[in-house]
Amino acid sequence: MGMRVCIVGTGLIGASLGLALKSLDEMQDSEILGWDASLFELEKACEMGAIDSQLPSAEDVLRPGLADVYVLATPVLPIMDWMQRLAPVLGEAQLVTDVGSTKREIAALASTLYNGPGQAAFLPGHPMAGKESGGAALAQVDLFDRATWLFTPMPEARPDALSARWRALVEDLGARAVDIDAERHDDVCAYVSHLPQMLSTALAALLEDKFGGDPTDMAALQAIGGRALRETTRLGASPYSMWRDIALTNTAPLAEAVHMLEQRLAHMRENLRTPELRAEFSTANGFRAEQRQKENPATRASE
Amino acid sequence: MGMRVCIVGTGLIGASLGLALKSLDEMQDSEILGWDASLFELEKACEMGAIDSQLPSAEDVLRPGLADVYVLATPVLPIMDWMQRLAPVLGEAQLVTDVGSTKREIAALASTLYNGPGQAAFLPGHPMAGKESGGAALAQVDLFDRATWLFTPMPEARPDALSARWRALVEDLGARAVDIDAERHDDVCAYVSHLPQMLSTALAALLEDKFGGDPTDMAALQAIGGRALRETTRLGASPYSMWRDIALTNTAPLAEAVHMLEQRLAHMRENLRTPELRAEFSTANGFRAEQRQKENPATRASE
Repeated sequence: MGMRVCIVGTGLIGASLGLALKSLDEMQDSEILGWDASLFELEKACEMGAIDSQLPSAEDVLRPGLADVYVLATPVLPIMDWMQRLAPVLGEAQLVTDVGSTKREIAALASTLYNGPGQAAFLPGHPMAGKESGGAALAQVDLFDRATWLFTPMPEARPDALSARWRALVEDLGARAVDIDAERHDDVCAYVSHLPQMLSTALAALLEDKFGGDPTDMAALQAIGGRALRETTRLGASPYSMWRDIALTNTAPLAEAVHMLEQRLAHMRENLRTPELRAEFSTANGFRAEQRQKENPATRASE
Repeated sequence: MGMRVCIVGTGLIGASLGLALKSLDEMQDSEILGWDASLFELEKACEMGAIDSQLPSAEDVLRPGLADVYVLATPVLPIMDWMQRLAPVLGEAQLVTDVGSTKREIAALASTLYNGPGQAAFLPGHPMAGKESGGAALAQVDLFDRATWLFTPMPEARPDALSARWRALVEDLGARAVDIDAERHDDVCAYVSHLPQMLSTALAALLEDKFGGDPTDMAALQAIGGRALRETTRLGASPYSMWRDIALTNTAPLAEAVHMLEQRLAHMRENLRTPELRAEFSTANGFRAEQRQKENPATRASE
């Protein structure tokens, strides 16, 4: 049975999702509509075949009965704006899902606007896929292949056929659907996703202030820093537009994680010449040993 | 003309160097001797053909006239021990070089023991190659191919044929030989090599204390953290044995760099909800843009 999917935000994630959905046999008689605040991103997504048709204006997205499933694939604050705009025009036979990087505030808003009698269903989601740069031009049909796609289902949500179908589609894209509590999602992400971003930004900004603008220095950094420098600063290229919303919607857990790292660094700095440094390396070695056991070589090779 | 090379320390760097030297046509009538404090590493290096013969004891390394070139490929403190033990038994026709990660203290010691009348020559070196784990078992014949090999030549060093020949050999291995002042080497390395190591260790240790030992948590970290987490914690696997010596011989520059990063992180933490965060992302974006211009795609692909 054909399905109409409206992708709101046709950047890297939205356009990759469009490409991936359209590659599935079961989606051949479905239709993918797309809208983006940037006409450039929207046209790019259309050109590459990630969407079947462009919605010219935001008002078109709000047309009653436009789609069965709405995928909100923008940064978190516009996701919450769209949740508010869509709720009054949708009904029980429709599903809204999202790909936002934080889930606590989205879930709280959804519980006031969705999943009730006469309201559309809402399924909060977060595919663990992306790149340090965004935009439809970087979209890939296999971006979600072997990725984890987190869902933070609403406790009060009624059993709903479209949510079940969306989860099945996600798995058909090659992703692994995993349920997690929204609070826990944000707490864990603060440490393993948002903290690595902030330290990479901090390191890159520090090096830019110290060495930036001098081509000789920058060439020396490149030569001396090598892979270690490249990997630890790679996320420094990430756009503020996306991270602003994460910082605004996960402030307390992120502030705690950054503060813990500051304290850890200070402890190491004060112990550069004492055996306490050995304990820090030993603890870190333990973490890597545990993680390496879990790292899937196939996944690593693809990145 | 055949050359006898004695590699002191046949771990990852020493064994890779042996493999690489022995692969050169011009080295076919040369001899590579090896010694290591660990009999296991020494036998591994011999088995894989990285050295022609093993020196059974440290005393054998000190036999007068043993070799033309001594390559000290241990952590920094044993390098300085070997510099002191070798100086009295070597003469003007011999060269000692090293691959140590810090150069200020090595250069200072060398200026008291080498390069004078009747003394052997000393050429401080630092190949920018390695892995987060060490050991002969990980040695690669092409480890130095397209790597930068830094030298911090002594201002007082006399022109010396063996040093010139060693530099030529390094370039024949595919490395790019670059001269840099020893002080500047250590100051720059504090920021672009030692600081990334310390923050990776700090992050991995923090995550181990918070989540370690719980297989469910560790699996969630793996799924959620993905490439960002893997890259920012990869260096957490690095051994204390090597980094202890770096921390001991580059303490002040490294402490300054770590302190600067702590301040930067605190600034970002205090501004998670203000437009100041935009400035940090923008500065970091600038660094990555400059570095990406300099990144050699061929080098990246090989890593």
